[in-house]
Amino acid sequence: MGRTHSNAFLQAPRFFQLPYQPVLRAVCTRNGQTAAQFAGNWGYESTETDWRKLVERDDIDLIDIASPNDTHAEIAKAAAQAGKMVLCEKPLGRTAAEARDMVKAVESAGKPNMVWYNYRRVPALVLLRLLLNEGRFGRIFHYRSQFLQDWTISQDLPQGGTALWRLDVKVAGSGVTGDLLAHNIDMAQWLNGPILEVSAMTETFIKERKHNLTGKVEPVGIDDASLFMCRFQNGSLACFEATRYARGHKALFTVEINGEEASASWDLHDLHRLSYFDHHDEGRLRGWRSIHITDSDHPYMKNWWVPGLQIGYEHTFIHQFADFVRSLESGQAASPTFRDGLATDCVTDAVLRSAKNRQWEKVSVD
Amino acid sequence: MGRTHSNAFLQAPRFFQLPYQPVLRAVCTRNGQTAAQFAGNWGYESTETDWRKLVERDDIDLIDIASPNDTHAEIAKAAAQAGKMVLCEKPLGRTAAEARDMVKAVESAGKPNMVWYNYRRVPALVLLRLLLNEGRFGRIFHYRSQFLQDWTISQDLPQGGTALWRLDVKVAGSGVTGDLLAHNIDMAQWLNGPILEVSAMTETFIKERKHNLTGKVEPVGIDDASLFMCRFQNGSLACFEATRYARGHKALFTVEINGEEASASWDLHDLHRLSYFDHHDEGRLRGWRSIHITDSDHPYMKNWWVPGLQIGYEHTFIHQFADFVRSLESGQAASPTFRDGLATDCVTDAVLRSAKNRQWEKVSVD
Amino acid sequence: MGRTHSNAFLQAPRFFQLPYQPVLRAVCTRNGQTAAQFAGNWGYESTETDWRKLVERDDIDLIDIASPNDTHAEIAKAAAQAGKMVLCEKPLGRTAAEARDMVKAVESAGKPNMVWYNYRRVPALVLLRLLLNEGRFGRIFHYRSQFLQDWTISQDLPQGGTALWRLDVKVAGSGVTGDLLAHNIDMAQWLNGPILEVSAMTETFIKERKHNLTGKVEPVGIDDASLFMCRFQNGSLACFEATRYARGHKALFTVEINGEEASASWDLHDLHRLSYFDHHDEGRLRGWRSIHITDSDHPYMKNWWVPGLQIGYEHTFIHQFADFVRSLESGQAASPTFRDGLATDCVTDAVLRSAKNRQWEKVSVD
Amino acid sequence: MGRTHSNAFLQAPRFFQLPYQPVLRAVCTRNGQTAAQFAGNWGYESTETDWRKLVERDDIDLIDIASPNDTHAEIAKAAAQAGKMVLCEKPLGRTAAEARDMVKAVESAGKPNMVWYNYRRVPALVLLRLLLNEGRFGRIFHYRSQFLQDWTISQDLPQGGTALWRLDVKVAGSGVTGDLLAHNIDMAQWLNGPILEVSAMTETFIKERKHNLTGKVEPVGIDDASLFMCRFQNGSLACFEATRYARGHKALFTVEINGEEASASWDLHDLHRLSYFDHHDEGRLRGWRSIHITDSDHPYMKNWWVPGLQIGYEHTFIHQFADFVRSLESGQAASPTFRDGLATDCVTDAVLRSAKNRQWEKVSVD
Repeated sequence: MGRTHSNAFLQAPRFFQLPYQPVLRAVCTRNGQTAAQFAGNWGYESTETDWRKLVERDDIDLIDIASPNDTHAEIAKAAAQAGKMVLCEKPLGRTAAEARDMVKAVESAGKPNMVWYNYRRVPALVLLRLLLNEGRFGRIFHYRSQFLQDWTISQDLPQGGTALWRLDVKVAGSGVTGDLLAHNIDMAQWLNGPILEVSAMTETFIKERKHNLTGKVEPVGIDDASLFMCRFQNGSLACFEATRYARGHKALFTVEINGEEASASWDLHDLHRLSYFDHHDEGRLRGWRSIHITDSDHPYMKNWWVPGLQIGYEHTFIHQFADFVRSLESGQAASPTFRDGLATDCVTDAVLRSAKNRQWEKVSVD
Repeated sequence: MGRTHSNAFLQAPRFFQLPYQPVLRAVCTRNGQTAAQFAGNWGYESTETDWRKLVERDDIDLIDIASPNDTHAEIAKAAAQAGKMVLCEKPLGRTAAEARDMVKAVESAGKPNMVWYNYRRVPALVLLRLLLNEGRFGRIFHYRSQFLQDWTISQDLPQGGTALWRLDVKVAGSGVTGDLLAHNIDMAQWLNGPILEVSAMTETFIKERKHNLTGKVEPVGIDDASLFMCRFQNGSLACFEATRYARGHKALFTVEINGEEASASWDLHDLHRLSYFDHHDEGRLRGWRSIHITDSDHPYMKNWWVPGLQIGYEHTFIHQFADFVRSLESGQAASPTFRDGLATDCVTDAVLRSAKNRQWEKVSVD
Repeated sequence: MGRTHSNAFLQAPRFFQLPYQPVLRAVCTRNGQTAAQFAGNWGYESTETDWRKLVERDDIDLIDIASPNDTHAEIAKAAAQAGKMVLCEKPLGRTAAEARDMVKAVESAGKPNMVWYNYRRVPALVLLRLLLNEGRFGRIFHYRSQFLQDWTISQDLPQGGTALWRLDVKVAGSGVTGDLLAHNIDMAQWLNGPILEVSAMTETFIKERKHNLTGKVEPVGIDDASLFMCRFQNGSLACFEATRYARGHKALFTVEINGEEASASWDLHDLHRLSYFDHHDEGRLRGWRSIHITDSDHPYMKNWWVPGLQIGYEHTFIHQFADFVRSLESGQAASPTFRDGLATDCVTDAVLRSAKNRQWEKVSVD
Repeated sequence: MGRTHSNAFLQAPRFFQLPYQPVLRAVCTRNGQTAAQFAGNWGYESTETDWRKLVERDDIDLIDIASPNDTHAEIAKAAAQAGKMVLCEKPLGRTAAEARDMVKAVESAGKPNMVWYNYRRVPALVLLRLLLNEGRFGRIFHYRSQFLQDWTISQDLPQGGTALWRLDVKVAGSGVTGDLLAHNIDMAQWLNGPILEVSAMTETFIKERKHNLTGKVEPVGIDDASLFMCRFQNGSLACFEATRYARGHKALFTVEINGEEASASWDLHDLHRLSYFDHHDEGRLRGWRSIHITDSDHPYMKNWWVPGLQIGYEHTFIHQFADFVRSLESGQAASPTFRDGLATDCVTDAVLRSAKNRQWEKVSVD
């Protein structure tokens, strides 16, 4: 994720009018050679190999955390205590408890903070939220969301280490629940409000994999697939599913919402499109519209190219960082804050609890 | 459904070589005028207004039940006892208990019997089952299926009576669980094997509606939406959802299955297409194939038109009836039998039980 | 085509209220055994093996011509002279000259007549025409239409005889120009008005094929592919293309029309959908709507099934025949008449002329 | 286009290993304030307001021309004579004659040169070319390509000046023929070989528009729409169409190719997908594959994100510039060179000639 973040730091000021100009003071990673190479490529002025040094530096105002999940809490808390602004990759913590500490730290410090749930900056989804807030959908009945991948189907794939820490439960905290479902949940609560209770099931299809750090075949601790049903505060019902075993799907993050007056759907494989059904259209002409979200009246798009020309994945990070820099001037916190990130962790906690207990679990927000 | 069945009786022998020629002896409905009109239109030789009379007639070999759900058990049992072959609209019973009695009756009588789960005769789905049986998908990880409609969103729609008995819980037995989910479940168990346990939730969005028979506003007893997660005997996980409140979807019955080696998906809005992903394809050329199921090497299709020309909804009934008539010669029961229909009712029972009890429920087939 | 016509005769009165009831008096084909079998299957009361006999029969009011193109003119003229109503498969004649004679014959006789350009009864296209006639598209700028097939790519396919007369230029008159482009042209002039002039090119990719009648390899006289550009009377420009060498396309008849205020497109592979773009939609929500043409307010559809359930290819013939029977009561000729069929032949003539002369050719209507 | 080029100069070295590091010495535009602002945003070291000064500077090795069409030839020739490498926006010249002079200049100078036909670097199209070169399509029968826009439909849109020079025939040279069709033609000849002869038609739908420079309503000299049919050297037939009057289409550049063994299609609205039909697939499982061109074995894609995450429009320029820089080391000219750009101008010349003369015109390459 270091590349997407760095790219955002560089591209945001070129495409958006920003009140401040980011300066890439230093990049930090445990391996000094890697750090130097990364710094050279992306234009960082210096490198560090110990994040504690980074946090201590006076010439740095903002710490961006793009390291594995088990480091988020410690770094974030130290950075906040050192009076830095803090940005953090998702999920915020491995558990809600970790996340709660992090929220406390940044809120005590009173410093701007943000979690990289980048899909909140997909123009199609921003438009969808605008439409929802305008009341165009009426009462919401249904929500559904998936995140389908297929990259861990092979039994030969090992777990752990730099490349595959997402498969190591100690580092990642959980499997697809924290990695993929967290995106679904953040989006769902942003679009459709709080989730009240969940009934979940998880599965680990491949029970043992070689561990890259020990060299031995070890039990797999993560969830390979995670499904849950839930009820939202607004009375709507939903079904969520995340997996890395859906052959043929690479990163199929889907969202659909059905309201009394309108429905919409979206997926990441064509992120520049929004499907929209408006019941107010004349009866015989009602149909799902495929809206190509590339016009100048679509969110963020007047800063890019002419109509019809699509953007890509990394643009969501550029938008998010631009919004963050603007928030420093406006004083309006850029979403999602650490507190928003905690709200997602509270749901993933409930999901994992429900899957274990085989019963409905309430989402406890604090 | 009387029209789709009658059409099937007439069309099947014109497009398929059948060992027997169906003769439309009589149609029965409570209103004599309606019966006469229907008989005139479809070429029935006579009419009855009491189904008991029909069952008693010696010139009739087969009784086809297309009346509301609360009549299925009684008619089917009487017909079986009278030594008739019996066809019955789905769901077989309003409950598994009703269905179990019906199975007992037809099996005691030793007469051919079949339930009209017509989607088992969609050529695309027949092909999908062939592919599954050939082992092309490898281990199955995921299954998912929806049936999304939007025709009961209006608060002004009444319940009950001839036109809207599906909204009257006494007649229908349940709401979308028996009406729509039953299709999803029949298809799922046919394609992917037995469902072992379920966790379900249901909702009645509109709590009161005018009743057509009493003229008064009465509580709505049916489920407007029904969702469940489940585990199949083959170890795969699934998510099911049926609703009549998904704005923009008319009859969106969907099926998707993800295996180790291949995946496939289908939906009723383009029933003549199958989406298929084959992991054995060369890496850089892998993609979801949209197969237009209109070639002569596709199930049933050599009996229709030239490649590229699609069939419609009613053709599934024609195929099913043709298969039934052929089964009389071969002696191999045409699927789904009453026993298969019971298997679906056992799952819908478990779904309704789970939604009520808010806990996982085993499917008891006994 | 005998099957689609016969099916239409039988199905039309079952699904549509008709003022007259068709009676299937006789079927005629050169081979008596074939005729008997066909009559048995479809319920014809008698058979003939000489069409002249058929035309002479007093118990017959209407002659339907479904034989190869080289027989259309002779039979139609004889039938008209005998005072019969005449229906004829498309194209009307092999040339405009043939067609002109046929028009003269039926108009002199003053008898109802119709050409089976069945796609005029696709509900989606009927709706499109309604929208055009309502003025919703404004000034038309562009029209485009294709008919893409791939069934003659193999060099091993022979030409001629009962099964493959479409490849024999003497019988068919031309290749894809008369067989496929004729559909495109009939539809185009029906939707968008008269074509004034064309510039065309044709190609015969495979120059020699075994002839089924002679058993010898003979030159191929038909056009395998036919393309033309044209100008319509309303000032719009168009591009047309038909071929049997478009690998991967089975019967991809496409239509697209772009107007100042709206655009629409359709194709035969999903004949129950219409794509529609309305510039009057709110700017940020403009998109192509995929309209599922299965609602009761769509043309012909209230006579079929509930919303969401599609019809197939043969339904277009059922609609056309129902309209014809109704026209006998209303006195309003059912479209397309022989005169409309001639209008298409005038364009195909101009196309073939232009391809040969390598220059723009005017369409001469009489 | 200055933004897409500048972005490519900055991004290419961050995502691709390049043998040389581009240095942004100077940006030149007539207005000094604009130049300064642009330089500030994109990191150019200095500015010029007279391109002649730029060409004279010793510290500059490469001139990139992103100004209106009427300046291409003069600047390119001067730059070549000054011994610079030259990159030029498409079309190369307003006419083949202009382009021929430009080719002569760069070839005499012996300096690397390239035209920004950026779509040659869409990964999906690069893959398509690889497949064609591997012989997977067999004999090619058909090619078709469109470029459909709708942004000039309003009569109120003026012509000329900085923003709308594309509508001013003196500056642009032609309308959609040079602006859009040029892309179609470059792609077609790159994929399918030389075009031999064309029959074309053009139209100017709106005959007069206010001119931004004179303030007066003046005749419109450009073509609003341009269509042509053609024959390729390989014997295939094609149909091309470009327009700015296709309501509902923003930048719908489409490509389709039909061969004996395979077919493929692509469009710019979903540039990260390739549709592919392989006749070698098992018969009953043949279908158009929608390949999501985001895997690491797809051209350029291992340098971007993980599978499933799409790229956008500007990436094509980044790829092209990366290839250019690499070509400086390899000595293999990066395509398309000025000579390739001339080949396109020869076809656009023939198209305009044919539309004017209303006859087939041969493409004369030199």
